[in-house]
Amino acid sequence: MGWSSFTKSFLPQTFDFFNLFDKHADIAVEAAEQFAQLMKDFNVDAKEVHTMKDLEHQGDQVSFQVMDQLNKTFITPFDREDIHALSKKLDDIIDMIYTITNRLRVYNVLTTDRNLAEFARVIEMAVKGVALAVKGLRDSKNYKEVLRACAEVNGLETLSDKMRDDMLVELFAKYAPDPISVIKWKEIYQEVETVLDVCEDVVHIVESIVVKQA
Amino acid sequence: MGWSSFTKSFLPQTFDFFNLFDKHADIAVEAAEQFAQLMKDFNVDAKEVHTMKDLEHQGDQVSFQVMDQLNKTFITPFDREDIHALSKKLDDIIDMIYTITNRLRVYNVLTTDRNLAEFARVIEMAVKGVALAVKGLRDSKNYKEVLRACAEVNGLETLSDKMRDDMLVELFAKYAPDPISVIKWKEIYQEVETVLDVCEDVVHIVESIVVKQA
Amino acid sequence: MGWSSFTKSFLPQTFDFFNLFDKHADIAVEAAEQFAQLMKDFNVDAKEVHTMKDLEHQGDQVSFQVMDQLNKTFITPFDREDIHALSKKLDDIIDMIYTITNRLRVYNVLTTDRNLAEFARVIEMAVKGVALAVKGLRDSKNYKEVLRACAEVNGLETLSDKMRDDMLVELFAKYAPDPISVIKWKEIYQEVETVLDVCEDVVHIVESIVVKQA
Repeated sequence: MGWSSFTKSFLPQTFDFFNLFDKHADIAVEAAEQFAQLMKDFNVDAKEVHTMKDLEHQGDQVSFQVMDQLNKTFITPFDREDIHALSKKLDDIIDMIYTITNRLRVYNVLTTDRNLAEFARVIEMAVKGVALAVKGLRDSKNYKEVLRACAEVNGLETLSDKMRDDMLVELFAKYAPDPISVIKWKEIYQEVETVLDVCEDVVHIVESIVVKQA
Repeated sequence: MGWSSFTKSFLPQTFDFFNLFDKHADIAVEAAEQFAQLMKDFNVDAKEVHTMKDLEHQGDQVSFQVMDQLNKTFITPFDREDIHALSKKLDDIIDMIYTITNRLRVYNVLTTDRNLAEFARVIEMAVKGVALAVKGLRDSKNYKEVLRACAEVNGLETLSDKMRDDMLVELFAKYAPDPISVIKWKEIYQEVETVLDVCEDVVHIVESIVVKQA
Repeated sequence: MGWSSFTKSFLPQTFDFFNLFDKHADIAVEAAEQFAQLMKDFNVDAKEVHTMKDLEHQGDQVSFQVMDQLNKTFITPFDREDIHALSKKLDDIIDMIYTITNRLRVYNVLTTDRNLAEFARVIEMAVKGVALAVKGLRDSKNYKEVLRACAEVNGLETLSDKMRDDMLVELFAKYAPDPISVIKWKEIYQEVETVLDVCEDVVHIVESIVVKQA
């Protein structure tokens, strides 16, 4: 038995982290795609919220598995705290998309909003960038592509700040006589932007992992 | 001198962490009980806010003692970062209960609210579950009971999400012509729910400590 | 070659952390000074927001350099997590001052507000205290002065809580018939106070570094 098969038999779990990250990233992408579709068609009913809740629950389970592996494994493919943070932040993305979807139902927002539909598309692009970056960590030959995806997500976050500001300016101008609508939409517009902030957090973690491995 | 008395003389401080956690948990329970009583009677005046501030201050002091012990001790009963996080989150619970109480006074909310009174009871139950879980960490023979308390707190957090959503739906329906009241109550309803989120954070830390010790 | 020059040649990078912290603290002070001046004169236009954005960007670059040093250095002047947290929180101060400035423009707040002008002065004092504390870490003979600066920042945070509460009471009394103004100012008043919370976080980290070095 050579060294390679020796380590293989002792360290199979180190490879699981990558599979779990792939799975977590896929769930995030599915949530972002469904959210973008939902904001386009705008039929946020109990069924849609339930579907999103189900994705959030799947994400929780993957996070739990990551923590479980971390507690049982001494050798990890990169720093324990980076694995922990990555799992936490991927989970946050899915949680926030669910929370926003649920809030639209709770606030009884019934009409589609062009701004929100466009923003949901930016979220979808950013989450796909996040997935590309996270999945690429598996092999250092992907690192150039990983860093390009990270840069793209950073760019989308900068764009999203500007979009949210413009949406808020428009909101206060349009709904001045209707403070209740201002209250609802302001919260929604601010929350969708924080999804981008969390995407940026993820790619910062990914970038620092790449730097440390180099 | 046997091994047992040897370690006792060298490691007395490791036992202090448990005493400090007990103390911190007791202060959190007292804050939650007072808050539930306050939301039932609804006489939030300067005196009540002051009492709550005093509990918050007591909590700060325990946190400070935990940090001080951590800085001086090499051997800890479980991971340093778990001790740090546990202390921080117990403190957050008390801080938030104080903040909400103070906000009710600042917002000059004078009438009792049945929803808030019920929610305060859920907070009280959750904080008592948190206390049971945290205090049980002292001895592995309690772990089964600890995990049951954790599960209960998780269940209360799920319930509280639903309660807050229902409260918000009711709020927007009831106060549509009174945006100022919507502004105040929306913030209060959202903040009480975050107390449950922090309780959930605590039991997640407790669960992971139990897993790692097993 | 004596031991001193030996370590000097091997550990030059450990000294860089202090230079980077000095730089970061200076940027934070500049942001706080500009903010205080801006709130006094109250001419928040695109140019002013741009200047603040530039400071925020400079802060990001220092943070990046700190992270880069951390990834490349084994020996650090104090705990890695403290360096990381200190850099993150100094960055948060600058980010928040930029965010508030930008929000005033987005919300089209055109008139000066005496309360906000006074609060900006408290922020300026607190950030200067933070800078004193952070810069003093370089040499243990400063520690007495460092701890005095920390105590001052803690005192300003307590004051700022009271100021914000008073400002909110006044706001709800004054703008009761104008919910849109309540929405805007409530958010601004609450955000300026969180700058003080972050200043307090910084001095808590500084205090714990001093304790551990002692």
